[in-house]
Amino acid sequence: MYELFFSRIAEKIELTEEEKALFITYLTPKKLRRKQYLLQEGDVCKSVAFVEKGALRSYTIDNKGTEHIIQFALEGWWISDMYSMLTGEPSNQNIDAIEDSELVIISRNAQEELMERIPKYERYNRLLLQNAYIAAQRRINYMASLTTEEKYTKLVSTYPDIVQRVPQHMIASYLGLTPETLSRARKQMTRK
Amino acid sequence: MYELFFSRIAEKIELTEEEKALFITYLTPKKLRRKQYLLQEGDVCKSVAFVEKGALRSYTIDNKGTEHIIQFALEGWWISDMYSMLTGEPSNQNIDAIEDSELVIISRNAQEELMERIPKYERYNRLLLQNAYIAAQRRINYMASLTTEEKYTKLVSTYPDIVQRVPQHMIASYLGLTPETLSRARKQMTRK
Repeated sequence: MYELFFSRIAEKIELTEEEKALFITYLTPKKLRRKQYLLQEGDVCKSVAFVEKGALRSYTIDNKGTEHIIQFALEGWWISDMYSMLTGEPSNQNIDAIEDSELVIISRNAQEELMERIPKYERYNRLLLQNAYIAAQRRINYMASLTTEEKYTKLVSTYPDIVQRVPQHMIASYLGLTPETLSRARKQMTRK
Repeated sequence: MYELFFSRIAEKIELTEEEKALFITYLTPKKLRRKQYLLQEGDVCKSVAFVEKGALRSYTIDNKGTEHIIQFALEGWWISDMYSMLTGEPSNQNIDAIEDSELVIISRNAQEELMERIPKYERYNRLLLQNAYIAAQRRINYMASLTTEEKYTKLVSTYPDIVQRVPQHMIASYLGLTPETLSRARKQMTRK
């Protein structure tokens, strides 16, 4: 149990067997079937989730009912609404499962306690956030500066798994495109 | 010296006088006149900069010569190309001063050593990155889901200082808009 979870942590910090045992007391496993929610708009996000198996997405829905995907999370990724979790404000996001999924849940309090008791885990989180922040900044830059074709090509090369496993209309939403625009661009690319 | 720097750190962690003295040995002051570069595209980013006074921006330039602003940094903010700094790859970004500025520079090695020697500083960086990541995710979501008017209004309410101090064409670039689109939207808003 929690195999992928601990192997990912071991890539960045070294936990003793004792620390690992302590860690496990803070973890809660959770299963979601496809289309089930981890978080619904209006609820306060109270935990972070690590994906052991499956795929999730977080998204907002605008006034016109259009979904805007913020993030995907496949095996080995983390997902949550950190803003809602830290402020205690109701979330404007939904998080649901794109595939049947198995998660490892850590509550906000458990996160804080784990970082207090195992300071290396604070380092782990710092490194994780660093990578997440870099990726977010690059995405902002790509959204503003790349053409539709370039955006799609960049996604395929950076996250081939996402493109294979996630429906095209969600890919379009993630890239800030309409499904029609993405579909046209893909056809053009096949012709080349 | 370094007044704002240490007061910002004190908001999140408590440094002893000894730790503060150690800290200072790792800091380098730097002044930039308006339009001078902190980082130029093609160079490797080797440090992070804290803004004691002034204003900077980071941006990329696309094939057509259009600038795309990634980030602004006013007093109390940090700026760097973290991707280039961590990978050692040449940066695709430029960072320059929008106003005459005074910076506190910490090299990559100094950052690592400071976090080793003062573990609280690792916590500080974790908290900083957490906020930066949340802000980046919200910006991604706004870019995709808000109208031009809503984007501008959100920027005015979140960062009034930026809107007051930064030229309009840079605001437009930051919002992923052409200067003309932003100017039209602002005129419409005044009429309302």
